[in-house]
Amino acid sequence: MTPRNPDFAADIAASFARQGALTTIGAELGDIAPGRCVVRLVVTDAVRQHHGFVHGGIVGMIGDVAGGYAAMSLFDPGRDVLTLEYKINFLRPALGDLLIATGEVVRAGRSVTVTRAEVVAIDGNGAATVCAILQQSSMSG
Amino acid sequence: MTPRNPDFAADIAASFARQGALTTIGAELGDIAPGRCVVRLVVTDAVRQHHGFVHGGIVGMIGDVAGGYAAMSLFDPGRDVLTLEYKINFLRPALGDLLIATGEVVRAGRSVTVTRAEVVAIDGNGAATVCAILQQSSMSG
Amino acid sequence: MTPRNPDFAADIAASFARQGALTTIGAELGDIAPGRCVVRLVVTDAVRQHHGFVHGGIVGMIGDVAGGYAAMSLFDPGRDVLTLEYKINFLRPALGDLLIATGEVVRAGRSVTVTRAEVVAIDGNGAATVCAILQQSSMSG
Amino acid sequence: MTPRNPDFAADIAASFARQGALTTIGAELGDIAPGRCVVRLVVTDAVRQHHGFVHGGIVGMIGDVAGGYAAMSLFDPGRDVLTLEYKINFLRPALGDLLIATGEVVRAGRSVTVTRAEVVAIDGNGAATVCAILQQSSMSG
Repeated sequence: MTPRNPDFAADIAASFARQGALTTIGAELGDIAPGRCVVRLVVTDAVRQHHGFVHGGIVGMIGDVAGGYAAMSLFDPGRDVLTLEYKINFLRPALGDLLIATGEVVRAGRSVTVTRAEVVAIDGNGAATVCAILQQSSMSG
Repeated sequence: MTPRNPDFAADIAASFARQGALTTIGAELGDIAPGRCVVRLVVTDAVRQHHGFVHGGIVGMIGDVAGGYAAMSLFDPGRDVLTLEYKINFLRPALGDLLIATGEVVRAGRSVTVTRAEVVAIDGNGAATVCAILQQSSMSG
Repeated sequence: MTPRNPDFAADIAASFARQGALTTIGAELGDIAPGRCVVRLVVTDAVRQHHGFVHGGIVGMIGDVAGGYAAMSLFDPGRDVLTLEYKINFLRPALGDLLIATGEVVRAGRSVTVTRAEVVAIDGNGAATVCAILQQSSMSG
Repeated sequence: MTPRNPDFAADIAASFARQGALTTIGAELGDIAPGRCVVRLVVTDAVRQHHGFVHGGIVGMIGDVAGGYAAMSLFDPGRDVLTLEYKINFLRPALGDLLIATGEVVRAGRSVTVTRAEVVAIDGNGAATVCAILQQSSMSG
């Protein structure tokens, strides 16, 4: 996957930084590569639900963001990403100290880009558990 | 749709109140009826993305919550709701002062409940725009 | 919903008739209106699975077709429909003599059209049961 | 992934053989392993749409079947598989002589199994193109 925007990583970082909603939930941008993006979330009570797991909506949100920026990494310069739709299956409770969402481009089409994302929970011993998988489409806009 | 839990509305309100993640994003519980639940979100910069729209992940989150509690309204007493999966299509930018997510049960099965949710944005003049639709399944747990 | 193609119904009928796969499973085109399309399937063993229900894949197929042609009814003249993605939840076994899939446009966007479809089974006494619901996006192509 | 049914492959083959709908579209069962199932479809006009591609509904159907039997391979003896829902993204036109759908279990839960499937088209030169990806949940029943 060859990026058409040489500044894709800086542009994604700038886009991420401007999103109040991501600051609100405490999401951080991780590694970015052509067709791939990682989003991290340090788990606090602010993102938990009543059983101590991270709320499924938060899990979906960081998966959506990771997939969307993975798509954007392959867009033309100056283009932003617009999620058309996504689908998430929850596999296990998101229980841990850190969530890592990794989005990857499956197909960069002319108008629609299809991505997959996976959200993994890391516990205090460093053990990783896959919590959710997403399938998503987005456009440049 | 007949609720099996006479206290379903109070139980949903108690469940909602215990979820830190919902407080973090500013979601509020609206009307609850058997097989139906409304979630409201007053829009501030804390839930916006960089174009001034509410972030899609937040839209998905309140849709998921509305659908999940619609399902829970028909569960047995003492049961909580667990989202298995959902799918969201974004129809228009979520631009407005208030978001209203309405979840409704389509099929209350023995083990899996299927719901639909719709998220509507209300602008300063009271005009409503449908921003997103969801299709979801959940279980009691 | 105003059609831009005055011959939308005839064009959809012609498109439907050219699809070998629809003949193979025995699907028939029903009513077409702007933003709405019905597909019918008389149930025989050729579309059943081993419990006597219509196979879920067939249910999905007629739902997909009904949604796609509902979208196409609002396209410009000469444009065909291309399904981008769909999501189906099965609600009840598809048991009956006739299946009726109804697709409806929820949002006709500039590039992407979002539709919903519902598949209903009709038994020998005329009783209708909703078997499946779909949420779908498509493009003109 | 350890199968609990020592006869899973024979049971899946027997289930597949009893499904009239699969015979109708010409689907054949390929390799089965614990948590993995392949379905093949020799492409004829009977499964094509009007542009010469395999109809998206047929692509979805064999993807659904491959994912469902992948799930069933890990079920208890005597249990059948019931698809709860699936989501398919179409990546490229299904153009070729042979389609191969491969389903794989992502999470075998107590009540719900989550699978992914991929449908690949093979052309006359043996070149493979990924046409569609699915994300699915199913239950034993």
